[in-house]
Amino acid sequence: MAQNIYDQDEFFNGYRRLSRQVTGLDSAPEWPALRAMLPPMPGARVIDLGCGFGWFCRWAREHGAAAVLGIDLSEKMLAQAQASPHDPAIRYQRGDLETLSLAPASCDLVYSSLTFHYIAALERLWAQVYAALIPGGSLVFSVEHPIYTAPSHPGWVVDEQGIKTWPVDSYQVEGPRSRTWYVPGVIKQHRLISTYVNLLICLGFTLTRLEEWGPTDAQINATPELAEEKERPMFFLVGAKKI
Amino acid sequence: MAQNIYDQDEFFNGYRRLSRQVTGLDSAPEWPALRAMLPPMPGARVIDLGCGFGWFCRWAREHGAAAVLGIDLSEKMLAQAQASPHDPAIRYQRGDLETLSLAPASCDLVYSSLTFHYIAALERLWAQVYAALIPGGSLVFSVEHPIYTAPSHPGWVVDEQGIKTWPVDSYQVEGPRSRTWYVPGVIKQHRLISTYVNLLICLGFTLTRLEEWGPTDAQINATPELAEEKERPMFFLVGAKKI
Repeated sequence: MAQNIYDQDEFFNGYRRLSRQVTGLDSAPEWPALRAMLPPMPGARVIDLGCGFGWFCRWAREHGAAAVLGIDLSEKMLAQAQASPHDPAIRYQRGDLETLSLAPASCDLVYSSLTFHYIAALERLWAQVYAALIPGGSLVFSVEHPIYTAPSHPGWVVDEQGIKTWPVDSYQVEGPRSRTWYVPGVIKQHRLISTYVNLLICLGFTLTRLEEWGPTDAQINATPELAEEKERPMFFLVGAKKI
Repeated sequence: MAQNIYDQDEFFNGYRRLSRQVTGLDSAPEWPALRAMLPPMPGARVIDLGCGFGWFCRWAREHGAAAVLGIDLSEKMLAQAQASPHDPAIRYQRGDLETLSLAPASCDLVYSSLTFHYIAALERLWAQVYAALIPGGSLVFSVEHPIYTAPSHPGWVVDEQGIKTWPVDSYQVEGPRSRTWYVPGVIKQHRLISTYVNLLICLGFTLTRLEEWGPTDAQINATPELAEEKERPMFFLVGAKKI
């Protein structure tokens, strides 16, 4: 079973105050790049893996999706998602992505934001995703970038010339990384970009776009603390299709 | 016109002593991974962009290629390539990859090892490559990995815990990097993995495999100094097809 940090009070009380959780998708700086990878929403049947508070589920419906299924492991997150005004075309379901089964040929888009890097059995899950998509269907997702997940001691270092750097080590050593994020012992899975991409190709997906996300100049002007994101990518975004 | 460091005596006298230049492909630790991406050689018409001393051209012929065209900017390299025993099916040609034209639908494989990160007009060159390939043809290449090319001051740093790290900065800032490699002022082009991949996709290529190369345990046992290559990837390998 997947680690469920979200239902620990200490974690949840920090996490729910993140701006992207309080005010939604537009507070996530990588959202415009991820949105640009999405297929047309009108009429689409959508699954959101790791839906959290349901921000994307509601966005998909507002943009014409016919039916949305949001899946998450966290009871607290799903409770908050279900506290939104009722929409009969959005269904929330508790599920463990390590063991989840999806109905074959049941949807046009599988979306997932910053969730897959917590999943150990990713090949199993993506095989379910591939089967769940109809031909022509899309998988669009973001994960933490491997440059961000690799280091044994992640963090910025200012060198003797005053340059802010992100020291990388252990890049080729894939597998779990234990991090402190509100609470100690949060387990993430470090994978190479090539591992993500080759896994998709081996399952039959065709890659349509990659982004190693960095802020635009306009985003840095509006939010100067984003400037450090130009030094190393934090997010890795992927668009893929079942042809 | 592309920078031609190879014909400077000082550079050439260092470069030609690299083990991969002296004893060929098997001295390049990433060669087994690159070779695994190649299509069958028997009968293939092959172009090698940045052929250097012609090691790959000769390998392709030894493995059944019908005709091989090796292109390089360096007169010294081509002179050494042509000093090998004559093979009428291998043709060496001096050419500048910044402005090269290739005959349309003329080949089955375009190969390039550690050359494209020197090219500024890469989109123009790859459009030529796409047109030169027949449907079903392959592009297989290696470049320096963006983690390797990004830093403003590249090099290993041992932190206070004794951990060897590769500090990354300027990752999102694509463009030229001036390096010292035998001589100062060697210009490389830093590009993101996503830039390489999206350019291929936009030109019509289908991605078949990526590798962020790292040494195998057997390679480290045989050559212990390769161990540091597990900390950060130096090479990025790509297989793509014209469907």
